[in-house]
Amino acid sequence: MDEITFAVLGTGGIGRRALEVSQHKDALTPVAACDRHGVAFDGDGLDVDELLAATEGNIDSEVAADGGSGGTTAAEGGVKQHGQQRGVVASSQARPSEDPIQEVIDRGDEIDAVLLALPNYEHDFIPRTADRFVDGDYAGVLVDVLKRSRVIGMLDDRSEDFEAAGITFVCGAGATPGLLTGAAALAAQSFVEVTDVDIHWGVGLKSGYEDNRGTVREDIAHLPEYDIETARELSEAEIEAIIDDRDGVIEFEDMEHADDVLLERAGVCDAEDVTVGGILDVRNDEKPTTTTVRVTGRTFDGETATNTFELGDETSMEANVNGPALGYLKTGVRRNRAGEYGVFGPADLLPGF
Amino acid sequence: MDEITFAVLGTGGIGRRALEVSQHKDALTPVAACDRHGVAFDGDGLDVDELLAATEGNIDSEVAADGGSGGTTAAEGGVKQHGQQRGVVASSQARPSEDPIQEVIDRGDEIDAVLLALPNYEHDFIPRTADRFVDGDYAGVLVDVLKRSRVIGMLDDRSEDFEAAGITFVCGAGATPGLLTGAAALAAQSFVEVTDVDIHWGVGLKSGYEDNRGTVREDIAHLPEYDIETARELSEAEIEAIIDDRDGVIEFEDMEHADDVLLERAGVCDAEDVTVGGILDVRNDEKPTTTTVRVTGRTFDGETATNTFELGDETSMEANVNGPALGYLKTGVRRNRAGEYGVFGPADLLPGF
Repeated sequence: MDEITFAVLGTGGIGRRALEVSQHKDALTPVAACDRHGVAFDGDGLDVDELLAATEGNIDSEVAADGGSGGTTAAEGGVKQHGQQRGVVASSQARPSEDPIQEVIDRGDEIDAVLLALPNYEHDFIPRTADRFVDGDYAGVLVDVLKRSRVIGMLDDRSEDFEAAGITFVCGAGATPGLLTGAAALAAQSFVEVTDVDIHWGVGLKSGYEDNRGTVREDIAHLPEYDIETARELSEAEIEAIIDDRDGVIEFEDMEHADDVLLERAGVCDAEDVTVGGILDVRNDEKPTTTTVRVTGRTFDGETATNTFELGDETSMEANVNGPALGYLKTGVRRNRAGEYGVFGPADLLPGF
Repeated sequence: MDEITFAVLGTGGIGRRALEVSQHKDALTPVAACDRHGVAFDGDGLDVDELLAATEGNIDSEVAADGGSGGTTAAEGGVKQHGQQRGVVASSQARPSEDPIQEVIDRGDEIDAVLLALPNYEHDFIPRTADRFVDGDYAGVLVDVLKRSRVIGMLDDRSEDFEAAGITFVCGAGATPGLLTGAAALAAQSFVEVTDVDIHWGVGLKSGYEDNRGTVREDIAHLPEYDIETARELSEAEIEAIIDDRDGVIEFEDMEHADDVLLERAGVCDAEDVTVGGILDVRNDEKPTTTTVRVTGRTFDGETATNTFELGDETSMEANVNGPALGYLKTGVRRNRAGEYGVFGPADLLPGF
């Protein structure tokens, strides 16, 4: 495959790790990275090490806490921390910008794919950002690592716009949805009817906690007592209290993860047959449970069986999000170059059920 | 996805099961099926139940035993059994033909995809059959369920011919290689370097034995004492003796399964890091061991871990071959319609590593 240039919007945990992992991937050149305060661009490839050093300590949750209202004009991921301006602009490769996302859009001709590494704290933030790329005549790949089922429909509503623009939008391309959705779609191949998909994840996030506060906040929004809006209003102290109440271990059941609609739209099973839950331990790096996908179905010869996919306990959440995100990004570019536009979920990029 | 028409070459175990499974798949219409003695064609869709009843008892191993020499001109899968002519021609939908494959080629305009359900008893049989489709100006998808690593290179040698013809060739699209190769490619996404892929399968083939003698013969060719040529020469009695010697349970190590080169060509790992083995029990339907893929690698943050994919013990070999074969076929048609021609392995049709 020919060289692929890509941009990262957001330099919180996911954006920074995507840049880091891309150094290990053949044919992937990061040419742009931005957060709300600035943008770095180098058509020959960014100096990732320098950029990572400059953005160390970015906390995407603080973006979520204070960046909710005016979100369509500023790229997210940069933070104010301890009164000090941090973020991309601390890098020698970057410069301040009033509208960093627009600058990326304006140089879209040089960018094959854009990873939206933005916490999806307003449920329409990703779709609205996509609209800006359409309006800016971007023709390429957009990839997100969103989680919420309701967002997929909002993207599907834009499918014709994407097709007209020449945009291939790959949604839900992280771990779950993403890697695990793909595993479910593949495991489904043994069956003529899938009756249950059960995704259960474990994440140990002690040393990665600071870097992934946005993810923790997003997870808290899945607890029965909270939703996206109330979780966004929580102060850091309130989040700490929620964690303390649970001795650092938060269990989730029946999460609104988009695996359900992504599997349904790929024809694998009904959304209601998909269950996602998990356990987050923010005081241990060891996973509290093994991340497992169980796909149960009926074979053509009448048997009922369960195929199982397990992630090794030693793989971090970051490894399981960013590897797949870049893998799906590469696949998206291949689809885009072949002239396939519109909205694609992880399961759409695997063998058809 | 729009309607897909497909043909099956060969009505042994794999061909017949593919027809059967296709009845459960959306948008797949079988329009042609042939074996060495005849061809059935119906542009509106074959009557699969009638065809299955007519071809019941076809034993693809007997094709292997007596069909080796003149193989390029006759479709395989029909058999002489107990002195009686059986096969496609026993179906009311079929008629005898001197050259059934050529008849399928000649109607290629009406066929989106062709499943080569032919035992690969001569290692160049599949490539030579593909040549006939190129020569006959077929432009569509060819899918095989071959096993041998050495065949992939022969197909790659024809890549330019396929591209010029507009043929998308999906190779190794059964269980292993196929489903399990895909699982390995997906499981690899957590890692920046894959160090080991270990595939270990279990097959219980008591009730399916008669229908899958060709597969058993092909497996025996993987034993250290045999190769493709010597296994082809074995009489049925000699095969029975081999099975008896092992009390019905045959263990295989370091098999020449194409998972290795298919993963290497997709950039997942080196071929030499892939190991395939398994246990075949022809006297029990229960699997003698759980079919498992273990992918070990290093994450970007320096951990070593193993992701695991397990097939439920209740899924038959047939379910695990034919579901994926048709899934890959559908994906191949999508690639073909997008103008992507050449040779694709299972791992090429998944997110890029």
